[in-house]
Amino acid sequence: MTSFTDHDDLKHLDEKDPLRLVKQRFLIPDGVYYMNGNSLGPLSTDAKTRMDKAVSEEWGHELIKGWNTAGWYDMPKRVGDKIGTLIGAKPGETLLCDSTSVNLFKAVNAALSIQKGRKKIISESGNFPTDLYILDGTRRFSKGEYELATLDRSEILNAIDEETAVVVLTHVHYVSGEIFPMKEINLRAHEKGALVVWDLSHSVGAIKTDLEGSCADFAVGCGYKHLNGGPGAPAFIYAAKRHHAQIRQPLSGWFGHEAPFSFIDDYIPANDARKLLCGTTGVLGASALEAAVDLFLEVREEERLEKLYRMSRLFDAMIAEKCSPYGFERVSPPDPENRGAHLSYRHPDGYAIMQNLIAKGVIGDFRAPDYLRFGISPLFMGYEDLLKVTDILEEILKSKSYEAAQYQVKHAVT
Amino acid sequence: MTSFTDHDDLKHLDEKDPLRLVKQRFLIPDGVYYMNGNSLGPLSTDAKTRMDKAVSEEWGHELIKGWNTAGWYDMPKRVGDKIGTLIGAKPGETLLCDSTSVNLFKAVNAALSIQKGRKKIISESGNFPTDLYILDGTRRFSKGEYELATLDRSEILNAIDEETAVVVLTHVHYVSGEIFPMKEINLRAHEKGALVVWDLSHSVGAIKTDLEGSCADFAVGCGYKHLNGGPGAPAFIYAAKRHHAQIRQPLSGWFGHEAPFSFIDDYIPANDARKLLCGTTGVLGASALEAAVDLFLEVREEERLEKLYRMSRLFDAMIAEKCSPYGFERVSPPDPENRGAHLSYRHPDGYAIMQNLIAKGVIGDFRAPDYLRFGISPLFMGYEDLLKVTDILEEILKSKSYEAAQYQVKHAVT
Repeated sequence: MTSFTDHDDLKHLDEKDPLRLVKQRFLIPDGVYYMNGNSLGPLSTDAKTRMDKAVSEEWGHELIKGWNTAGWYDMPKRVGDKIGTLIGAKPGETLLCDSTSVNLFKAVNAALSIQKGRKKIISESGNFPTDLYILDGTRRFSKGEYELATLDRSEILNAIDEETAVVVLTHVHYVSGEIFPMKEINLRAHEKGALVVWDLSHSVGAIKTDLEGSCADFAVGCGYKHLNGGPGAPAFIYAAKRHHAQIRQPLSGWFGHEAPFSFIDDYIPANDARKLLCGTTGVLGASALEAAVDLFLEVREEERLEKLYRMSRLFDAMIAEKCSPYGFERVSPPDPENRGAHLSYRHPDGYAIMQNLIAKGVIGDFRAPDYLRFGISPLFMGYEDLLKVTDILEEILKSKSYEAAQYQVKHAVT
Repeated sequence: MTSFTDHDDLKHLDEKDPLRLVKQRFLIPDGVYYMNGNSLGPLSTDAKTRMDKAVSEEWGHELIKGWNTAGWYDMPKRVGDKIGTLIGAKPGETLLCDSTSVNLFKAVNAALSIQKGRKKIISESGNFPTDLYILDGTRRFSKGEYELATLDRSEILNAIDEETAVVVLTHVHYVSGEIFPMKEINLRAHEKGALVVWDLSHSVGAIKTDLEGSCADFAVGCGYKHLNGGPGAPAFIYAAKRHHAQIRQPLSGWFGHEAPFSFIDDYIPANDARKLLCGTTGVLGASALEAAVDLFLEVREEERLEKLYRMSRLFDAMIAEKCSPYGFERVSPPDPENRGAHLSYRHPDGYAIMQNLIAKGVIGDFRAPDYLRFGISPLFMGYEDLLKVTDILEEILKSKSYEAAQYQVKHAVT
């Protein structure tokens, strides 16, 4: 028994955890250890209460007036600015809208619109697939104007050159949890005249992210992972203020118009970041997300990050002690501050092990060929939970119970 | 007093209305006569119950497993097919996703992808603005490959020629309620080698729409108007099966991939309409909409349309009798079967009159410079309601009470 496995010590950490009351606001089912907030964050009482209100009071009672009286019309900017405080954006730079994929298309094309004459788009091979797919769509529809170079992450920095129009990277890798040095890449890109679009899907609500301090140009990100906004929650888009006047983007729907309710035939883009909006705001999804983000704003970021790093270190140390002997191998970087808010491990029987874990209430996920991912949340998990999870995992590995089970491959959404 | 103003007659019509039990499932606040379902449909007990379930049971309890166990992954196709039955589509041709604006961009670009060498995009001047704005974005980002001709509706049919790539029209006009002859335009377009994209935002859940019978190519439409799907509900996109193999569209996100969860770097489009999907489904909004659409599927279309036409004729006759003397002038076509499920009138004091109506519980809407719109819903309105509304309107006009009031222009979302 090491200190890691001492329930009393961990209980004590939980008791003096400044976020312990926040944890109680998440509605995790009994017997579940939820380590998949990096795929879909859990429901909070805040989001549930807000959804009841959005449905019954706002939609049900205010009806069409809700666009004014319930503040629906201002949601993209209002909720966007709240998310902006979590990623180091200034007010007016972040908007809630659409999906991450649609926003990436807008952000990349907005960047390209001010990069005349440059042909090259750079991204990482093994980047989150939808990012690469959207870049493929952009390249294909440019009819040869742009070419896409997908490179190993080690090659990215040196590949940025005077022909590079845009670099599109995911800040925290969805499998390994590795973090790109945002500021270094932005500065190198700017030195060469290139622009950078960051996908913050695994950063926002998870790790320290400072767009302004990193001289960022554009970013997008997801509302349904660490932000706990609900399944398929709306996403966000960010553009640094210095780019607002010049950019254009092709999804020029009415919510991006200077005066959406003037009902004129000619498109005149809004004179600020709202030109990145397209269609009508998905109010119900945005309502759940706003409540979930409000909960973040109640929490001191330092406390959240301190707990994250401590939990991340602790979990990895317990896995090393209890599971390495059975072939568990860490994929994520060793230092908690240099990885995202999930930890990935490899094991040849990873799929069967994860199915066994899920059957015993530990919800992580599996990525082919042999990765097991465990999300770490300082908001809805406690220290003792980590010990219980690693006890269950150790027991599965020790008994090899996973070898006996039958498994079916099903869909899984990251 | 004509028969129109006889409450007993209208009560009798309500009593024998085969849809009277459906009406009770809508949660319209007491004292409200809601005639704005053409902007935002009202809440039903069905949608409310389903949202409770989607939030607490599905998201709250199933968590990430909900993608399988709660059927989230299949929502675009499942709900799309349900909507498809309301617009004369075959299974597999309609998908629920994104906003109407985003879907229009996808549909237009999908059509253009199989129209090589043709330069012209035709639409109607005074079309719903976001449609024109999206076409402007398409034109602008084609860097001169396409030109946009916006014509008076009377000129459209004859303007379709051998240079026309795509015609983009709204089936039911958002102000006047005029209906384009869908089949005639599709056939003329096909004769000239052009394709047509229909915006069904004011058709679906409202009037008879037969895409297959009209030889339609592509369509999009809105979930939050007559479908009663909730504020900013997801939209839908339709592509006739004969086009599935050839089309490509630029918003090639992971949900449109052949195997979204294979996590490979290369985009391989799905071999069916799913190639029109982009990002992750907005599950909460889609859940409310699905419940609202399910309610439609319980109702016999003939009964719904018969009630619509009867109500539409009755309302217009009552307005003619009671309000024409005060300068009310109908803008919509005279025959109920030749107009959408809303009626528009002009009055020089239209804005003030509508504000007065709203203050008295009659929720219609106003469109500059002087249009008053009244949505007619056979699902959540009764015959006697129409008489009460016209009584209130007549009283306002008679007393000229609107002249005394002070009004502020606010946002209004159609």
